[in-house]
Amino acid sequence: MIPPKEIIDTIEKENSFLILTHSTPDGDALGSSLALKFFLEKLNKKVEFFTEKPIPIQYRFLPGINSIKDLNTLSVENLDVLILVDCNKTNRVSYEREILKKIELFSGKRIVIDHHITDKEDEKSLKWIDHQKAATGILIYYLIKNMKGELNEEIAYNLYTALIVDTGNFQFDNTTEEVFLIARELVKAGAKPSYIYEQCFESWGESRFKLFLKMLNNLELLPPLAISYILKEDFQETHTTESDTERFVEFIRILRDINLTALFREIEKDFIKVSLRSKGNIDVSVIAREFGGGGHKNASGYRMKGSIRDARAQLLEKLKKYKLL
Amino acid sequence: MIPPKEIIDTIEKENSFLILTHSTPDGDALGSSLALKFFLEKLNKKVEFFTEKPIPIQYRFLPGINSIKDLNTLSVENLDVLILVDCNKTNRVSYEREILKKIELFSGKRIVIDHHITDKEDEKSLKWIDHQKAATGILIYYLIKNMKGELNEEIAYNLYTALIVDTGNFQFDNTTEEVFLIARELVKAGAKPSYIYEQCFESWGESRFKLFLKMLNNLELLPPLAISYILKEDFQETHTTESDTERFVEFIRILRDINLTALFREIEKDFIKVSLRSKGNIDVSVIAREFGGGGHKNASGYRMKGSIRDARAQLLEKLKKYKLL
Repeated sequence: MIPPKEIIDTIEKENSFLILTHSTPDGDALGSSLALKFFLEKLNKKVEFFTEKPIPIQYRFLPGINSIKDLNTLSVENLDVLILVDCNKTNRVSYEREILKKIELFSGKRIVIDHHITDKEDEKSLKWIDHQKAATGILIYYLIKNMKGELNEEIAYNLYTALIVDTGNFQFDNTTEEVFLIARELVKAGAKPSYIYEQCFESWGESRFKLFLKMLNNLELLPPLAISYILKEDFQETHTTESDTERFVEFIRILRDINLTALFREIEKDFIKVSLRSKGNIDVSVIAREFGGGGHKNASGYRMKGSIRDARAQLLEKLKKYKLL
Repeated sequence: MIPPKEIIDTIEKENSFLILTHSTPDGDALGSSLALKFFLEKLNKKVEFFTEKPIPIQYRFLPGINSIKDLNTLSVENLDVLILVDCNKTNRVSYEREILKKIELFSGKRIVIDHHITDKEDEKSLKWIDHQKAATGILIYYLIKNMKGELNEEIAYNLYTALIVDTGNFQFDNTTEEVFLIARELVKAGAKPSYIYEQCFESWGESRFKLFLKMLNNLELLPPLAISYILKEDFQETHTTESDTERFVEFIRILRDINLTALFREIEKDFIKVSLRSKGNIDVSVIAREFGGGGHKNASGYRMKGSIRDARAQLLEKLKKYKLL
C-alpha cells in the first residue's frame, strides 16, 4: 500500500508538525500518533503532539508517552503542518470550544491520516483515509515503510498497541492476513506481545472494576440485543471517567446468543454517549449515522441529548426500522 | 523447521493410522488431530481418530468434528501406525483402565507429535516433541508444509483453532513472530479469525453469564489477593454446574493490583473446591499441597471439608505462613 504522494512530499518538505488526535484517545489514537512522532523526529523534524490529559493508565507504558503535551496548553504557532491522526475532522479533537477555536487559528497545511468512515469532505486537508484498514496504525506502518524509515522498538511498541486495541487483540473481523503480517513485522522489530497485552488489557484498577460491575449488573438481555448503561452518579461514586469504560461493551460479546450490544453512558445530565457493537454482518454504523454519529460496521457510536430512557427507546425504534431487532 | 525423517518416511510408507490425543481434549488437541487426519486422508491413507465424547460445545464447529469416533468404541485392529498428538504418553489418553489396556494391545509403529515437556522416555515411539512451540498445531503445520501438502480450508480452521487456544488468542508469552507468520498463512488458506475466536471464546450461555456475575459480585479485594466464592445454591439458581466456572478465575487477572486469586466453589454442603491462580513468580502450588492438592506454580487447586468461611480463614492463614500476604 502506497501513501498519497502529496502527503509524502509535504512531510519531506516541511520542518515542523503539530499532531492531534481524537478526544478520549485510545490505543490506536495514541500509538499511531506516537509512532508518527518518533518517525518524524528521526527525519529531524520538530514535532508537537497534544492530547487530552490525563492519559488513560493502560497506555502510560507507551514509549514516548511523557512527551505528549496537554491539549489545554495547545499552541498552534510556528508549526508548518497539522496532522490529524485517527480522526478526520478537527471537531473530534475536543469538546472544548476554546480548544477548537485555537485549532481553527492554525493557518498551515493540513493532513488527515485515518481509517474512520467520513461523510463530509473537508476541502482544506490532504487526506489519506482508508476505512478498510483495521487501525490507523496500519497506515502509519505503510507511511514509515514507504519513506524507508526504520521500525525501531519504540515505533514497534506503539504500532503493535494500535493494532491490538483496534482489532480487540486479533478477535474482530478486521483481523486480516495483512494484520498478521504487520504484527509479525512489529514483533521482529521488538514489540513484546504478552507484555503489551497485559498493559493494554489487564491493568484495571479497582475503581474501573467496580464501574464494570455496575455495567454488568445493569445489563438487560433481549437476545440478540444486550443493553446496559452507566449513570453519571456511577462514575462519581467509583471515581472513574468515560475513558474507564473502554472495552466494557466488547465484553458482552462473550454471550453466545447476543450479536448486538449497546452501552449508554450519561456524561452529563441529559447528555448520553452511546456505543454500539455487533458481530458478523450486522452493520451498526447505519444506526449510528441515523443519530449523527459514525464508526465502523461492527463498532460505532453517537451522542444524543436526553435521558437514558429516551436513548433506549430511540435506539430500539431505529433497530426495528432497520430490521435488526 | 523440518520434521524427523523417520516420521515422514513412516507416513509415506504406511497405509492406515490411528490418531489419539489427551483426555479432556482442548482446541490444540482436537484441531491438531483433525488437521493431521485431513492431511493423511488427502494422501489416501485410512485414518481413525478417537477421543472422549461429548466434544465440548465450543469445538463442535471444527471441520471434521463429526468424523471423530467415541473413545469408548476404540478398536486398534488393522491399523499400521498409532500417532499420539498433543501428548506424549498413552496413559494421558484416558482415565479408564479398559481403554488404556486396549491401547497397549496395539502392535504397530508409534509416533508422538507434541509440545509438552516429558520426563520419561518411551522407547517404542518415533518422537517429535518440541516444547518451545506454542502449540502442537505448529508441528502439524510444518509436517504438512514439508510433505508438500495443501493447506486447505478445513486444515486452516483446525490449525488456527489450535494456535489461538494455546496462545490465549495471542496473549500468552509463547506468542512469537513464528506464531504470527503461521496465523497469516492459515488466514490466507481460508481461516476466519473472528469466526473462530467467537466459537472458541464467545459461546457462553446466559446461565453461565449469570453465574459469572454472582462470582464477580462476591469478589473480595484484599490486594494483592482477590477471593470469591460460588455457593451450591448459586449453581442451582442459575442451572449451571462446576464445568461452567472454567476461565472464571482467570478473568480476575484483569486487575492490576491483584496477583493472587482464590475461587471457592461449594460443590456439596461442607465440601469446597478451591482454585488458586497467581501472576509471575508467586508459587501457589505450595499452598495447594498444604491442603493435599496440587498443580502448577501459577495454577493450582485443592478440595476441603468445611464451609466457605472456614476455607477462607484457613487459606488466609496459610498465605500468611508463606509470606504471600
